[in-house]
Amino acid sequence: MRVLGIDPGLRNLGWGVIDVDGSRIAHVANGICRSQGDSLAARLCSLHEQLTQICQTHAPQQAAVEQTFVNKDGASTLKLGQARGIAMLVPAQFGLDVGEYAPNTVKKTVVGVGHADKTQIAHMVRMQMPGVKIEGPDAADALAIAICHAHHGSVQRMKVKA
Amino acid sequence: MRVLGIDPGLRNLGWGVIDVDGSRIAHVANGICRSQGDSLAARLCSLHEQLTQICQTHAPQQAAVEQTFVNKDGASTLKLGQARGIAMLVPAQFGLDVGEYAPNTVKKTVVGVGHADKTQIAHMVRMQMPGVKIEGPDAADALAIAICHAHHGSVQRMKVKA
Repeated sequence: MRVLGIDPGLRNLGWGVIDVDGSRIAHVANGICRSQGDSLAARLCSLHEQLTQICQTHAPQQAAVEQTFVNKDGASTLKLGQARGIAMLVPAQFGLDVGEYAPNTVKKTVVGVGHADKTQIAHMVRMQMPGVKIEGPDAADALAIAICHAHHGSVQRMKVKA
Repeated sequence: MRVLGIDPGLRNLGWGVIDVDGSRIAHVANGICRSQGDSLAARLCSLHEQLTQICQTHAPQQAAVEQTFVNKDGASTLKLGQARGIAMLVPAQFGLDVGEYAPNTVKKTVVGVGHADKTQIAHMVRMQMPGVKIEGPDAADALAIAICHAHHGSVQRMKVKA
């Protein structure tokens, strides 16, 4: 089962693809989509194009997106929401189920505690996939989200169904 | 010049298309996209499909989307942001410029004051386009956004450039 994890962001959107076989996971690819364009619409369009390309290239069978942390800064929440809309849309357009995981769930699964920092996450992702070259912290988070999805039943349930 | 106005919303997304010729405006079509599906990703996908269909059918040359009101309820802002991401994306995928207008600007332009209610907006939209059948308050808002765009220079500037 191939899983695409996405860490949504308007300027930098992290993504990571892993293969899951029972309890074994293997790295496939990871990277960061950098939105281009001088308007919000153009940036969203750019993210959509890049994510579509990733789905075409790597053909994931399931997807997982981090639940956005809603903070008191409404303007930031709105921006992130718009990017997250694209992150949810593209896998759905490819017919994939899209899991959603809170940041704390991702951290607990990958690091063992709910309040790990980005360095720890990248470290634990590397531990689980020796030799992996990670494109940056957003890509590490995306791989962590994919790993979290692999551990949280959706993949297992899909195997039973299939 | 044909203008598509969009009032973004996750469950009900209003849209309206008008033709603008100098100071004259004419109604083309309006309606409400109701998102379907039992997950957020499916709902966003449904909105994307419906909006794509509208752009294909009515071939707008410009688009305008209401700037979302950012409130203290972060969860609502996030939901709306995700729907708004789709509302901005689709016209951009058709190569259209997407104007953004604050609700107050729309109301001031269409009704004359910044704090009009939905009934007043629908009334003034009907006054400007006699005989128009409006599918609901969200569609009336979308037509008002299109009218606002027609009055706010973008259309005029495009004419000068063309």
